[in-house]
Amino acid sequence: MPGSHLTKELQPLMAQLDLKRDNDKQAEATVQKAQPTCRQRAKARFLKGVSYFSGDMAVFAKWMEKQFFLFQLLDWVLRGAAQVMFVNNPLSGLIIFAGLILQNYWWALNGFVGTLFATISALILRQNRGAIAAGLYGYNGILVGLLMAVFSNAGNWYWWLLLPNIFMSMMCPVVSSALASINSRWDLPVFTLPFNILVCLHMVATGHYNHHFPQVLIQPRTELPNITWEEIDLAKLFMSVPVGIGQVYGCDNPWTGGIFIISLFISSPITCAHAVLGSTIGMLSGLALAAPFGAIYFGLWGYNCVLACIAIGGMFYALTWQVHLLAITCGFFCAYLGSAIANIMSAFGLPACTWPFCLSALTFLLITTETNKIFKLPLAKVNYPEKNLCFFWKMKKQEKQEKLEEERKTKEQKAIEEGMILNEKEELSLNLSAMEEGNTTQIVTAPEAESEQRDTGEEQTTEDYPTDETNANLV
Amino acid sequence: MPGSHLTKELQPLMAQLDLKRDNDKQAEATVQKAQPTCRQRAKARFLKGVSYFSGDMAVFAKWMEKQFFLFQLLDWVLRGAAQVMFVNNPLSGLIIFAGLILQNYWWALNGFVGTLFATISALILRQNRGAIAAGLYGYNGILVGLLMAVFSNAGNWYWWLLLPNIFMSMMCPVVSSALASINSRWDLPVFTLPFNILVCLHMVATGHYNHHFPQVLIQPRTELPNITWEEIDLAKLFMSVPVGIGQVYGCDNPWTGGIFIISLFISSPITCAHAVLGSTIGMLSGLALAAPFGAIYFGLWGYNCVLACIAIGGMFYALTWQVHLLAITCGFFCAYLGSAIANIMSAFGLPACTWPFCLSALTFLLITTETNKIFKLPLAKVNYPEKNLCFFWKMKKQEKQEKLEEERKTKEQKAIEEGMILNEKEELSLNLSAMEEGNTTQIVTAPEAESEQRDTGEEQTTEDYPTDETNANLV
Amino acid sequence: MPGSHLTKELQPLMAQLDLKRDNDKQAEATVQKAQPTCRQRAKARFLKGVSYFSGDMAVFAKWMEKQFFLFQLLDWVLRGAAQVMFVNNPLSGLIIFAGLILQNYWWALNGFVGTLFATISALILRQNRGAIAAGLYGYNGILVGLLMAVFSNAGNWYWWLLLPNIFMSMMCPVVSSALASINSRWDLPVFTLPFNILVCLHMVATGHYNHHFPQVLIQPRTELPNITWEEIDLAKLFMSVPVGIGQVYGCDNPWTGGIFIISLFISSPITCAHAVLGSTIGMLSGLALAAPFGAIYFGLWGYNCVLACIAIGGMFYALTWQVHLLAITCGFFCAYLGSAIANIMSAFGLPACTWPFCLSALTFLLITTETNKIFKLPLAKVNYPEKNLCFFWKMKKQEKQEKLEEERKTKEQKAIEEGMILNEKEELSLNLSAMEEGNTTQIVTAPEAESEQRDTGEEQTTEDYPTDETNANLV
Repeated sequence: MPGSHLTKELQPLMAQLDLKRDNDKQAEATVQKAQPTCRQRAKARFLKGVSYFSGDMAVFAKWMEKQFFLFQLLDWVLRGAAQVMFVNNPLSGLIIFAGLILQNYWWALNGFVGTLFATISALILRQNRGAIAAGLYGYNGILVGLLMAVFSNAGNWYWWLLLPNIFMSMMCPVVSSALASINSRWDLPVFTLPFNILVCLHMVATGHYNHHFPQVLIQPRTELPNITWEEIDLAKLFMSVPVGIGQVYGCDNPWTGGIFIISLFISSPITCAHAVLGSTIGMLSGLALAAPFGAIYFGLWGYNCVLACIAIGGMFYALTWQVHLLAITCGFFCAYLGSAIANIMSAFGLPACTWPFCLSALTFLLITTETNKIFKLPLAKVNYPEKNLCFFWKMKKQEKQEKLEEERKTKEQKAIEEGMILNEKEELSLNLSAMEEGNTTQIVTAPEAESEQRDTGEEQTTEDYPTDETNANLV
Repeated sequence: MPGSHLTKELQPLMAQLDLKRDNDKQAEATVQKAQPTCRQRAKARFLKGVSYFSGDMAVFAKWMEKQFFLFQLLDWVLRGAAQVMFVNNPLSGLIIFAGLILQNYWWALNGFVGTLFATISALILRQNRGAIAAGLYGYNGILVGLLMAVFSNAGNWYWWLLLPNIFMSMMCPVVSSALASINSRWDLPVFTLPFNILVCLHMVATGHYNHHFPQVLIQPRTELPNITWEEIDLAKLFMSVPVGIGQVYGCDNPWTGGIFIISLFISSPITCAHAVLGSTIGMLSGLALAAPFGAIYFGLWGYNCVLACIAIGGMFYALTWQVHLLAITCGFFCAYLGSAIANIMSAFGLPACTWPFCLSALTFLLITTETNKIFKLPLAKVNYPEKNLCFFWKMKKQEKQEKLEEERKTKEQKAIEEGMILNEKEELSLNLSAMEEGNTTQIVTAPEAESEQRDTGEEQTTEDYPTDETNANLV
Repeated sequence: MPGSHLTKELQPLMAQLDLKRDNDKQAEATVQKAQPTCRQRAKARFLKGVSYFSGDMAVFAKWMEKQFFLFQLLDWVLRGAAQVMFVNNPLSGLIIFAGLILQNYWWALNGFVGTLFATISALILRQNRGAIAAGLYGYNGILVGLLMAVFSNAGNWYWWLLLPNIFMSMMCPVVSSALASINSRWDLPVFTLPFNILVCLHMVATGHYNHHFPQVLIQPRTELPNITWEEIDLAKLFMSVPVGIGQVYGCDNPWTGGIFIISLFISSPITCAHAVLGSTIGMLSGLALAAPFGAIYFGLWGYNCVLACIAIGGMFYALTWQVHLLAITCGFFCAYLGSAIANIMSAFGLPACTWPFCLSALTFLLITTETNKIFKLPLAKVNYPEKNLCFFWKMKKQEKQEKLEEERKTKEQKAIEEGMILNEKEELSLNLSAMEEGNTTQIVTAPEAESEQRDTGEEQTTEDYPTDETNANLV
């Protein structure tokens, strides 16, 4: 289907979807506008160009399938890096790695090693090739690698750290696969749960007082922090929005956060918008719950809300206004949960990781409701928000058509039934006349009547009625 | 079915069930007692009167459906208040609110706000209207509202508390719906898990050292308490039974507890009896596990056992002697679990809430056994214990009848089959005689045999092969 | 099937499986070797003797069914004691009790009481008789009894301890049954989760500062331990392997561990090998993660890995080289997890119990993969590793045969279809010639054509074609 392929290429962006609908309308009244203007053609060419590197870069992925294995692996690793933000796009992944390098060379290296070995481990464990190629086995790896480096107390370039890093990132597909077995019962994704489990595992198994792999010291709050509203720094507060997005990867550099925003935008503007919205919600929640300003500036209140807002707002639900409100609610709930989990985890010397995001997003994905405005996509159909919307609209259209079709059919069915009753009456009168004629015909019609009786007894194949009658008429 | 409706009205109380059985017996021998005596009529009238405000007040609920929306909402809120104790009765709810007001105005207000907003939120989220009308979305709200006020360290009439109160109670239906998606796989209720999750969330997210919403300080026990059996105060120990029931709503006033007992009794005596039994079990367990007397007097050992005993003893299982023993065992297990969870939660500055009840009741509801004396009701059929018993007895009766019916049928089937064999034999002899007569008949019997073959051949049976062959041979 | 029974008797050991395969080969070429040599007969007799007390002692179990109830109960208790190591063998159970007595009389008594009451409670709760007879309700009981005695701070022969011991071991079947309801959805066993839950429950409910049931004091590590590689004691390190196996039952005596190894060997050499392997893996992990030497010598790093290695390596997966590597990976993961859980639990004054084993083994059992070299046995078919292998090989053989059979069938089907087409052509020509002859035949063929039409419409019963044709031909 080269045609459908073309439309697929043309649909990656929200703006284009509207265009596409226009195209449909045009198609209905094709002939008049056979020759597009120069400007239209330029626009179409531009959009096609955009489609090559936005969305999930499906054309590129197809092209990659025929390339050398190491190139493919690199593609998967880059997609894995971007999948942390639910983005299946190697270009975004590349930009994210650039942001990481800007933050810290050692962390970026650990992140790369993590993604690489997680992907390799998935290959060894013979996981689904499509999922590997979409980077779905890499994103936990990059987080494991990065955060193990971030929380290590041994300083940068402590090469021994690569050992547990490789072990833990190779455990990612194992834990992912196991969790997927459970979550798939409710058609839920595993999110970053494997990362949360494995990093917490490593940190609490070693702890601050370990000779080989010491962790930074995290302790529970035990006294009243000093918060006065006069001390608030609005510039820093404003900066906390990109910093919050950067903290998804454990980065506190606002420029890194800004680069991440760009990487989101080129793949999916809806995702990008919800990321910024989420980070803002987290910051506001921090102020409402009287959090120390330092933690807010550092983006610790933002990153979970960023992920939760992206997940609910268009990624796993089809984006409608109701879903948008749900995403905002989920953001606030996630911020609350973030504070709670951070306090609990600190009792064990652990950071909150992305547990709050996972738990709040899973909760909001488990909701059942009687309205059809909140439509949860089947997990197998989840793509990027713009494509999800296409799927949702197409499905709605189809449903409508099916309804109409059904109505038409029931009408036809009625007509046929009425016709059949007429036929049967006719037949009966024929039989009556035949009976008057003689005995031989009677013998023939008798088994036929029988067979009719049987046919109806068969329960599902009644379409051969007319033929039977034709036969009878022939006789 | 006006008749069945009438019996429904007449059955809300345990005492009446016996009466009803008597009625059934009387019905069997109707004619003699056509004219009930004056006393019988008075009793019937009294029981019908009782039925209007006991049980789940189904008549009232039906009448309410046609009333103004705000009255309906009030009905739902009152039912929600009573549903904490599994009681679906607005009168009980009203009495419970009276008990709360007796305890503390501010707490009662918070409880009311919590129930109201939880119900409203369920309406916004388009949850099942029947469940909302039964108060199933309100009971977590009242607990959230009450307990957030009880554990707040900011004192009474700290109006800002209403903000998180409203937010958290509006999150109740979200968490309820999500948990129901999980628990429904095992046909389990969500109990008060949403309340537990949300109150713990709020408390641990803010904590004792918070500027906006400080919580009371709860710390783990770190030294040997002084317990000497001489110091025991038997009056207080006796009082701890109603106090334990009051503590379900966080109230330590024994009078409030007493009022709650009354509210339970008017709806369902079985529930009431198990509540008192549970509180006693909790108190005894506290003594056995060497708990500080203060905690026992304060009812902290009772409230979880109260709920666990009610849930197992007749609410989700049909009440038999075996189930009654199971409820007692569950009570002791719940008390043990309560002590354990209280110790763990205190490490995070949290109270035990009703986690022990939820976990122990869920455990006991998950048991599978090969005896039919322990019958778990399908969740959709759960009502109040007396009605559940009716359902159980009716089901047993029906099963018996079905068994008898089946036996009768198999006998008939046998008779028919024997008859058919006779018929076939007859037919065969007919065919034989026909064969002797001439060719015309042959033409008729051939397709008929065929059709027979097809009839039996449809669906799965091919045993008529021999008959065909017989025919063929005959031909 | 006395023959299959015989082969069952002959297959309990790995060594014999090879022999059996040899036997199969011999069976194919039976006649030549009709008279086995004297040595072969001796070997067969020896193997049959071995089979009586190795494996799951199925012959003995069958014989036991007819004995006095108390003897049966003793059999179940002994099997329960061995089931901790997944061994369903009363002799192993007896040897394990011997090892326990060697360690500590009081502990052994508590273990016996625990197993006994857990089994009795399962009988009261009407659990599956087969599972009870296999000791599947006893193994949690023995662990509960033993570990409650081990962690009690009241010293040996504190008789009051028997009260919570009996209560908790009687709760084992309740918790087992509830957990099985959940885990069975994923076809997973409950492992020692009931023991973990109940012992932690008891310990945290009472705690170190309890008057009636004080527990040993366990506190989190808060400073740097002194570890210098010069101090390492290789003899103790070597000894830690049997000690690690002994620690499964909470025993630190290396001789007890050695006795346990023997008890494993007589039932299943594969299990025994994986137990030793697991203990070694645990010890190495402890060194890698810079654990205090004392903890390693004491076997605390070993016992979880022992159980995890046994479970994955042949017990719930059919043993292949890939599964063997998986078991080793699981061992390392389990050790890591063990350190993490021990650190977390110590914050509540709790030991790690066998949580690490349960969680790691469940994770590795939940993996799904596209390779058929990692075959998870259906839970109902799980036996001891050697028998599981038999099942796996038999299944593979059957699959191969079925494939061949299917291929053969499709070929035959094709042939038949071709024949039928020929037949139909023939029939048509017959009809044509008949039509030329006269009218009477027409009457016959008409209903027949009808029937054909219907037959094909039925889609699933096409076997009557030949008969029809026979009729047609006859006519």
